[in-house]
Amino acid sequence: MSNPSVTAVILAAGKGTRMHSDKPKVLQTLLNEPMLHYVYAALKPVLDTALTVVGHGAEMVEAAFPDKKDGFVVQAEQLGTGHALQVAWDAVKASGAEYCMVINGDTPLVTSEALSRLADVAGCCDLAFLTITPKDPASFGRVVRDEDRRITAIVEAKDYDINEHGPVTGEVNAGLYLLRVATIEPLLDELRNENASGEYYVTDLVGLAVSRGLRVDGVQCGDDLSLMGINSPRELAAAESALRRGIVYDLLDKGVLIHNPETVIIGPEVNVEPGAEIFGHCEIYGRSTVKRGARLGSYTYITDGVFEPGCDVRQFCHIEGAHVGPGAWVGPYARLRPGAVLKEGARVGNFVEMKKAVLGEGSKASHLTYLGDTEVGAGANIGAGTITCNYDGKNKFKTVIGDGAFIGSNTALVAPVTVGRNALVGAGSTITKDVPDEGAGIARGKQVNIKRRLKKSD
Amino acid sequence: MSNPSVTAVILAAGKGTRMHSDKPKVLQTLLNEPMLHYVYAALKPVLDTALTVVGHGAEMVEAAFPDKKDGFVVQAEQLGTGHALQVAWDAVKASGAEYCMVINGDTPLVTSEALSRLADVAGCCDLAFLTITPKDPASFGRVVRDEDRRITAIVEAKDYDINEHGPVTGEVNAGLYLLRVATIEPLLDELRNENASGEYYVTDLVGLAVSRGLRVDGVQCGDDLSLMGINSPRELAAAESALRRGIVYDLLDKGVLIHNPETVIIGPEVNVEPGAEIFGHCEIYGRSTVKRGARLGSYTYITDGVFEPGCDVRQFCHIEGAHVGPGAWVGPYARLRPGAVLKEGARVGNFVEMKKAVLGEGSKASHLTYLGDTEVGAGANIGAGTITCNYDGKNKFKTVIGDGAFIGSNTALVAPVTVGRNALVGAGSTITKDVPDEGAGIARGKQVNIKRRLKKSD
Amino acid sequence: MSNPSVTAVILAAGKGTRMHSDKPKVLQTLLNEPMLHYVYAALKPVLDTALTVVGHGAEMVEAAFPDKKDGFVVQAEQLGTGHALQVAWDAVKASGAEYCMVINGDTPLVTSEALSRLADVAGCCDLAFLTITPKDPASFGRVVRDEDRRITAIVEAKDYDINEHGPVTGEVNAGLYLLRVATIEPLLDELRNENASGEYYVTDLVGLAVSRGLRVDGVQCGDDLSLMGINSPRELAAAESALRRGIVYDLLDKGVLIHNPETVIIGPEVNVEPGAEIFGHCEIYGRSTVKRGARLGSYTYITDGVFEPGCDVRQFCHIEGAHVGPGAWVGPYARLRPGAVLKEGARVGNFVEMKKAVLGEGSKASHLTYLGDTEVGAGANIGAGTITCNYDGKNKFKTVIGDGAFIGSNTALVAPVTVGRNALVGAGSTITKDVPDEGAGIARGKQVNIKRRLKKSD
Repeated sequence: MSNPSVTAVILAAGKGTRMHSDKPKVLQTLLNEPMLHYVYAALKPVLDTALTVVGHGAEMVEAAFPDKKDGFVVQAEQLGTGHALQVAWDAVKASGAEYCMVINGDTPLVTSEALSRLADVAGCCDLAFLTITPKDPASFGRVVRDEDRRITAIVEAKDYDINEHGPVTGEVNAGLYLLRVATIEPLLDELRNENASGEYYVTDLVGLAVSRGLRVDGVQCGDDLSLMGINSPRELAAAESALRRGIVYDLLDKGVLIHNPETVIIGPEVNVEPGAEIFGHCEIYGRSTVKRGARLGSYTYITDGVFEPGCDVRQFCHIEGAHVGPGAWVGPYARLRPGAVLKEGARVGNFVEMKKAVLGEGSKASHLTYLGDTEVGAGANIGAGTITCNYDGKNKFKTVIGDGAFIGSNTALVAPVTVGRNALVGAGSTITKDVPDEGAGIARGKQVNIKRRLKKSD
Repeated sequence: MSNPSVTAVILAAGKGTRMHSDKPKVLQTLLNEPMLHYVYAALKPVLDTALTVVGHGAEMVEAAFPDKKDGFVVQAEQLGTGHALQVAWDAVKASGAEYCMVINGDTPLVTSEALSRLADVAGCCDLAFLTITPKDPASFGRVVRDEDRRITAIVEAKDYDINEHGPVTGEVNAGLYLLRVATIEPLLDELRNENASGEYYVTDLVGLAVSRGLRVDGVQCGDDLSLMGINSPRELAAAESALRRGIVYDLLDKGVLIHNPETVIIGPEVNVEPGAEIFGHCEIYGRSTVKRGARLGSYTYITDGVFEPGCDVRQFCHIEGAHVGPGAWVGPYARLRPGAVLKEGARVGNFVEMKKAVLGEGSKASHLTYLGDTEVGAGANIGAGTITCNYDGKNKFKTVIGDGAFIGSNTALVAPVTVGRNALVGAGSTITKDVPDEGAGIARGKQVNIKRRLKKSD
Repeated sequence: MSNPSVTAVILAAGKGTRMHSDKPKVLQTLLNEPMLHYVYAALKPVLDTALTVVGHGAEMVEAAFPDKKDGFVVQAEQLGTGHALQVAWDAVKASGAEYCMVINGDTPLVTSEALSRLADVAGCCDLAFLTITPKDPASFGRVVRDEDRRITAIVEAKDYDINEHGPVTGEVNAGLYLLRVATIEPLLDELRNENASGEYYVTDLVGLAVSRGLRVDGVQCGDDLSLMGINSPRELAAAESALRRGIVYDLLDKGVLIHNPETVIIGPEVNVEPGAEIFGHCEIYGRSTVKRGARLGSYTYITDGVFEPGCDVRQFCHIEGAHVGPGAWVGPYARLRPGAVLKEGARVGNFVEMKKAVLGEGSKASHLTYLGDTEVGAGANIGAGTITCNYDGKNKFKTVIGDGAFIGSNTALVAPVTVGRNALVGAGSTITKDVPDEGAGIARGKQVNIKRRLKKSD
């Protein structure tokens, strides 16, 4: 952690007009995590505290990051970055930090290293900012330095004058600032909004600081495009693609066996161990963990899944918040919803859905089945077309199936109900009462064969 | 519309030998639309009328474009493009147009702009054609101009002689012609087939027109590769890829939130509004409409679907001719067939199929269900494993389920049948008679528990 | 076949530490075939016999290639390539071959042509090896030749000295050797392991042979990167990608209609005829055959499938070891397991699984069905939700359904059972006894309607 003390101010109030979305821009996702997540993640190893200025969709942002709930400052009107900083200033001072670092919430590619370099100049200056020298400086503010390479101004691209500002260097302002609270405070009130958009800009603090004789530094980050903000769907897609490639090729280099890496999508918080094997097209998001020797087939969508060694997830599986035990088999076409747990060697087959359901060691549910709010013991067999009726329109009820039980095909188990250890249920039954251990239950009509009276639709 | 009058003649009689297919070449698809569709679409804003010369698989082509049915001319034998024009000539004259524009039906990338530029020279010349100057002129006919830049000939690549034809310019004939009906007509009979393939070529009209002193123009289109014809699967794949990218990146720039754009496939007639969100890999074809705020998950295949704001289509959905209402949820693994309608806030879950079926406001069919020829009211719950038996081997019958009804799991509803408002159906029932409003129906065997006599397969 | 006689020695004992896997390296797969498969396939047209030296996971390698079972030599300890050759030497001599060709088992991209060029120098030399001149010679051993271009040494990159070894040529040793059994044998015992890794290397035979005045040749293969070995997941992914592209674009050029070829994955032993149509994303592995006019939709996973002309496999199908007859329809969301056979015009729809099951001419199983160990005649209709109960927990039993039979929806057929020709089964039945030809069977409870007593979960 840096020294002297620094607190971050993250600007996250913008709407993102070009996104055409009801969501505030910082909640747009890359690899299923909101933009703002990446900024928090980059900050985490650098600074302890952060304030987040929210405005458009403030409640949505706050709801998305409940663990940051004490750090939100609401900017009711969006009058520019300078205004956002003014709004947050009391909280900055209340934090007791000597410096504040101003970061745009729409820069998901920002790295801890860049933030760390900026934090490192705390103590030496009154105001510092990161600069980049991209191939295309676009409309970024041009950095002007004097002969001693000291910052003298930031000039807008259209106002740049070689006679006045010197030869073009291509160095531009990346928009991340470090401000000494004590010396910058007086300048905040001097920000003016006499510009085309009628907004107050943090950038203008640079000129004010220079004019007051404060020490202003520009920390050069070369052509580090990761500092650029995202303003449009196209920029979002490009950033997401860059993130995706970085994650996937890092994993390949760590020893993860990835087939068709160009079609593999893995989120930033996913943990994949060397020796896991993944076949693209595949998507793995959230806080998933894929252990050594686990195997994830193609056409797979996963969020918050845990995959133990030797498990085999076949094609077309949809897995959320589930735990797949060692040597377990899943799919194809299995849907595991939150709370699904497969113990060692359990098998879930095609067109089977599990929700808050445990399948014990070596148990199988191979076809066309719904297990909801269910506990299945070890060595049980759940026949094709078994459905747990866990819902009465208001409440959910539990089904318990004992070790070694055999549920015949096309059976409805009306919860709450228990099928005992080693018990049998006859195919086609609707089971409404418990079946005892070692017993058998059957509930169906008796077969009658007739001479073709039946209409086919009977 | 151009002036003087121009009619188009589209050459669509070819087999496309290198496609190795029973379909005529112009019916091979790009983004699920036949090649010929693209030519018609490019022509639409330029010319009012078009004749289409069909030959190989003529009936298949005519059947694929019923709205063009008055414009087909059958070329029974395929003796070359010149012959095709001869076959169509009576119809051209009958159209009363002063000019005819000859277009190859295998150029799906052709643009309205190029066709428009050709139409614009009507009035000024007797014969005009588009020329391109590609990096690789390949075997295209070389355009020869005199010192005044007037066209004097088109020469085959292998016959080009610098001494005779002048320095190589790289300008070649793109194969789209504009012909003045009155002055070109006499030349049609002079076409000869004394060439390697024994065919009559429209190209030869250029030389004939020059030799007769008619005015011949070459309209230069630079390196516009979109004019090139498609002759092989590899060219088809390349053209489809170019179309795909064009559509997807245009949508990104319009403000559609597209994740993994490289794996998103969207057809040319699909309407996606800014602010819709699409996750690749995804395929959207036909006349689909995706509105602002609609969300389409990955692994999705859609044809002719309509998606209202706030709806959420999860992964692995297959949707054809369906309407997904505002805030409705679909999937994962939902199949919506033609006539499926989800009203506001309705939900269709995994392994559920709907066909000619309406699911009312807020109603749910969450698991393993088939709803065919069915109307479900508002606020109803269709249990897991519900099947509408709509078919008796000959006819289809209708199922009606009232507002607020609750269908227990693993139930068969034998149509025609009505389950009334707020009615209940017990799990495991086979319902063959109507259940009254507010009533309950049950049809299943009574459960018997015995001491393990049952064979497991009972 | 070459002359004089040559036998191959394939070095396949390595663990592949950087793969972090329990599988030996040569069993890591590319396009679902183990690495070693590719080496055998490249050798097949060149040499008749091959010995394979196995070590790490020897039993797994032997089990994976049962047809090579007489050719395995076990190297119990892995002490280097030279040691592997020593271990195999008795078997080499027993083969009676005059030469042996030493090939690394981790070079799946090796071509028959390269192996053939090496085999062709048999007779002319005592030792030969393939050399390449890649852009990046990396750490490959540098080839040193004298003024007559004769090989004098192979020098490690770090030991290369321009003064001693002459100007850098970039020619390096690719690691494939041809050895004359009679003359190289005495050198085998002279191999030493005094090097950093303490291993015996075949490479050292080159220096020994030169020092003994034997004839040593280097067969130059330019920049043929296909000879490079695979040591990491990243190299595996790159090789797999190269293979994939090669196969897919070759098929395009042969006349297969492939849409989105960048997302199509086809294994090396798959046979696709010109005029077949394939939509990516698609995976086809094993010994599959796709005939002219067959159509495979996107999101499809296939192993060992046969697809007859005119069949249509829709999206989201999972097919292993199945036969899809002419004009048959499959999917979407159909799973065909080994032994599934669709006869002409048969149809299998969504959420249907077939295993060891035959569906006769024109028969249909359209929704939510499991057919296991079942024979269905022609013209039968299997209703939605039909389940064959083929398993009693121990054994599998057979279901037979006659021509023209109609199985009502939500029906369980408890095997062994026969439903006769043109017989009907009522919806919701559990059929435990045979239904005669032309007869009808029904087995379900009678419906009772009551005035809302039922709890919803009943």
